[in-house]
Amino acid sequence: MANFKGHALPGSFFLLFGLWWSAKYPFKFLMKRTKSSKRCFERVELAEGIVKVVFSLVGILAEQFVPDGPHLHLLSEDRESWVKLMNWQHSTMYLFFGISGIVDVLTYSSLRIPIGFDRLVLSLAVFNEGFLFYFHVQNRPPLDQHIHSLLLTAVFGGSLIIMLEVFLRDNLALELFQTSLAILQGTWFWQIAFVLYPPSGGPMWNENDHGNIMFITLCFCWHFAVALSIVAVNYTLVYWIIQLRRSKKSGAMELGQLKSTEMNSHVHLLQSGDED
Amino acid sequence: MANFKGHALPGSFFLLFGLWWSAKYPFKFLMKRTKSSKRCFERVELAEGIVKVVFSLVGILAEQFVPDGPHLHLLSEDRESWVKLMNWQHSTMYLFFGISGIVDVLTYSSLRIPIGFDRLVLSLAVFNEGFLFYFHVQNRPPLDQHIHSLLLTAVFGGSLIIMLEVFLRDNLALELFQTSLAILQGTWFWQIAFVLYPPSGGPMWNENDHGNIMFITLCFCWHFAVALSIVAVNYTLVYWIIQLRRSKKSGAMELGQLKSTEMNSHVHLLQSGDED
Amino acid sequence: MANFKGHALPGSFFLLFGLWWSAKYPFKFLMKRTKSSKRCFERVELAEGIVKVVFSLVGILAEQFVPDGPHLHLLSEDRESWVKLMNWQHSTMYLFFGISGIVDVLTYSSLRIPIGFDRLVLSLAVFNEGFLFYFHVQNRPPLDQHIHSLLLTAVFGGSLIIMLEVFLRDNLALELFQTSLAILQGTWFWQIAFVLYPPSGGPMWNENDHGNIMFITLCFCWHFAVALSIVAVNYTLVYWIIQLRRSKKSGAMELGQLKSTEMNSHVHLLQSGDED
Amino acid sequence: MANFKGHALPGSFFLLFGLWWSAKYPFKFLMKRTKSSKRCFERVELAEGIVKVVFSLVGILAEQFVPDGPHLHLLSEDRESWVKLMNWQHSTMYLFFGISGIVDVLTYSSLRIPIGFDRLVLSLAVFNEGFLFYFHVQNRPPLDQHIHSLLLTAVFGGSLIIMLEVFLRDNLALELFQTSLAILQGTWFWQIAFVLYPPSGGPMWNENDHGNIMFITLCFCWHFAVALSIVAVNYTLVYWIIQLRRSKKSGAMELGQLKSTEMNSHVHLLQSGDED
Repeated sequence: MANFKGHALPGSFFLLFGLWWSAKYPFKFLMKRTKSSKRCFERVELAEGIVKVVFSLVGILAEQFVPDGPHLHLLSEDRESWVKLMNWQHSTMYLFFGISGIVDVLTYSSLRIPIGFDRLVLSLAVFNEGFLFYFHVQNRPPLDQHIHSLLLTAVFGGSLIIMLEVFLRDNLALELFQTSLAILQGTWFWQIAFVLYPPSGGPMWNENDHGNIMFITLCFCWHFAVALSIVAVNYTLVYWIIQLRRSKKSGAMELGQLKSTEMNSHVHLLQSGDED
Repeated sequence: MANFKGHALPGSFFLLFGLWWSAKYPFKFLMKRTKSSKRCFERVELAEGIVKVVFSLVGILAEQFVPDGPHLHLLSEDRESWVKLMNWQHSTMYLFFGISGIVDVLTYSSLRIPIGFDRLVLSLAVFNEGFLFYFHVQNRPPLDQHIHSLLLTAVFGGSLIIMLEVFLRDNLALELFQTSLAILQGTWFWQIAFVLYPPSGGPMWNENDHGNIMFITLCFCWHFAVALSIVAVNYTLVYWIIQLRRSKKSGAMELGQLKSTEMNSHVHLLQSGDED
Repeated sequence: MANFKGHALPGSFFLLFGLWWSAKYPFKFLMKRTKSSKRCFERVELAEGIVKVVFSLVGILAEQFVPDGPHLHLLSEDRESWVKLMNWQHSTMYLFFGISGIVDVLTYSSLRIPIGFDRLVLSLAVFNEGFLFYFHVQNRPPLDQHIHSLLLTAVFGGSLIIMLEVFLRDNLALELFQTSLAILQGTWFWQIAFVLYPPSGGPMWNENDHGNIMFITLCFCWHFAVALSIVAVNYTLVYWIIQLRRSKKSGAMELGQLKSTEMNSHVHLLQSGDED
Repeated sequence: MANFKGHALPGSFFLLFGLWWSAKYPFKFLMKRTKSSKRCFERVELAEGIVKVVFSLVGILAEQFVPDGPHLHLLSEDRESWVKLMNWQHSTMYLFFGISGIVDVLTYSSLRIPIGFDRLVLSLAVFNEGFLFYFHVQNRPPLDQHIHSLLLTAVFGGSLIIMLEVFLRDNLALELFQTSLAILQGTWFWQIAFVLYPPSGGPMWNENDHGNIMFITLCFCWHFAVALSIVAVNYTLVYWIIQLRRSKKSGAMELGQLKSTEMNSHVHLLQSGDED
């Protein structure tokens, strides 16, 4: 769907996942590693896999069955030309994220799949997204090409980082870097939607102006700075929440201790009173 | 051989190796590591090396001695031009896989070659394949160039993964990734054969149509999805076979135990009968 | 600021940091690792972070509020065109180094941030610099393009090295490599300033002459050789200073020992004198 | 020196070093690691560094003081143009290898330089060679460009492998890979000399013929296959020599044992004779 919705939909998916990760990974890092917390996180990963599969299905169905979609036809009726290849490309993109979701579900359920596989397949799904995009933007006006190729930096960067996580598991630096790239992708998809298909029927951007291209490059850096800030703020929030809960717990314990101490002293007083 | 057979032959080789690996690596990972299983796997690796050498010889001989081949001539008779450089290129490609096979054989036989060398040389052979392909496709129609350059993604990706295995030995994630890329290469060689040299004498593809190029890109992704699925299915099959054998064994053992228990109880009965 | 000062300012920043690192890292490597030296180095890192933030602020303010700067305006008054995007680009570059400085400060202060983050964000800041430069130099004369793209080698190389330091912490080889690239960047910014904006009003370079381009390439290599030498000399100086201090200390100790020995022998002499 | 000798000289240097490494590394790997062998190897590394410095000096002097060289002049007398930049480029290339040699000498002598530095600087020297070559071949006929850019594969590959050795020390796979790339560089420099400056005054190659370019690509692969074979043969030779020396030693020991046994039996015979 080369329109506003076709970019806003994947943008929202990436943004949701990025924001969710920006809370999940700090929690995983800062929480105490007990058996129960580990089991809890496995259930969370399972749920994440299921959500991924659902999002992918939504994406595929949306791309196929929108009014101007291919409705699962690949060849036109006269078997002379291809039908809506753009929509097929987007479906394929979602398909790989769906496969990644299935692997997540299988990893955290019964089969003895080694732990790195979920990352390997997610990395391939992201690479596949970039791969399709790379051949997607040829023969377009300069601004369109440029705005999409900026996205490729985030996409291939993300793929590389996730691939590294196959070998360097539970490395917070990599995880938060990946998170900020996911948020960047999400916001940038929305930016593309607003630039190329202004929804309010506003004036179109001049797609050949060099000033616009320079501005868009700058804009991409600002998006990344914002993504980094979101990750930083969420890390700090999680840090404070965990500190607060701990101090409450220990506060409750202290209070309990205090009470029992008080009671003891009362008893003592009474006893000493008795003794008087 | 720039024809159907010249692409179907290497395609079959890669496909066979890919399918074989998709069974070998899960077995190696899931089986218990006993001394006898280790020795068995070394013999298997040796056999694999020999098969690699044989396939390479077949490939070299086929490229050299087909009716329109160079028959080992490099310069034309008037010493003015080169003879059938394309066939020489393909021979060179097979030569490197042959060297890789020889190194496999040497590694798993007597000489004290460190264990990473088989992978290093295989990686170089795959890189060499990509290197020759890269300079192979210049000055061709767009579709021809594109369909070959898609292959390069699988080839250089495979080379990189195998190179990583020099250092990260026995990593199932890398091994299955390499396997799926080998299957992808195999099926894609067949796809190239069908697209560029339609065997049934069907209509030729329009090699300059942008729609065809977009479709071929999509098609490559689907091939990869299929390759991943084949690997996943074979992993699951191997997992079940091993589970089944174990449960049978333990079933047999239980049965044996049961029998001996029964016998014991019979004896006991008899004894107790005697006692009556 | 596409003028002499606009290149001399960042050049000086990089040069200062490079020279400082060429002393810091050898000290860190050669000093004994005691608790007090570790605490001292943490305070030094904190100070470095603060200096980084200050330099970035200076850079941003200079780019925004020079007489021909954008004064924080992004759109022109008729909302038709962008204002001074070049200055905005440079401000963005400084912004990311500022973020890196803030992360440094946070890492070495209270929050429980894992230790690799300071490097990750510094690496991203350097990458961002290269990213902006890459799109900065299109549509310029050949010499201008070439002299900037040489800088990119140092920039992206530096980014990669610092990224490696996220995982390979306290590796002197990486640290000194990074240091020499920082010095190279610093001197090269000055070189760019002198070539493109000769300050003494000297004759302009012919920006299309191939000889000039070849010479500039050579010149870049010589800058790097000089940067390597500076690092080597500073390492040796630090090595000698530490040796000297140690030998002084042990000399003092020896002297002390000698004195006490002398005293002992005096006592002995007196005693023996007494005995006479 | 853009002539036969200017390519044969560095070719010989690389070839000599490659052949030397193809003997050194297997010896280092296969020999027993005793204190004395370790000290011996350190002296060998020191000698290697000195040879590197000498070769570099020879190269620099040859490039500067051949009859048509720049004789250390950089600017022409009228200060209008550069003098013989090509020779200056080659001198710079040798300069970096000289620096690498000096670092080798310092590493294996007194200063407390960490062990990875020799590789880091060698890697930079090789990278610098490739860097200069990359900008060296623009504006040349296609064959000239192609034959030099093939060299770049070996050069940048070598630089990467040596960089890896900074972190993965004493890895035979890397060391022999580096060795084969050095031999490849050596023979390819000679090949370039023979193709571009045929010494016997033979007919020039057609530098625009696509067949020639295809053949040269193939030829490069064959050079690499030969380089790999040389490394393999030398490894096997070293293996046999060490086996032979060991069996001789143990043979001598056995013989000694035999003799002493014989003597004992003689003594025994004599004794038994005495007893008769």
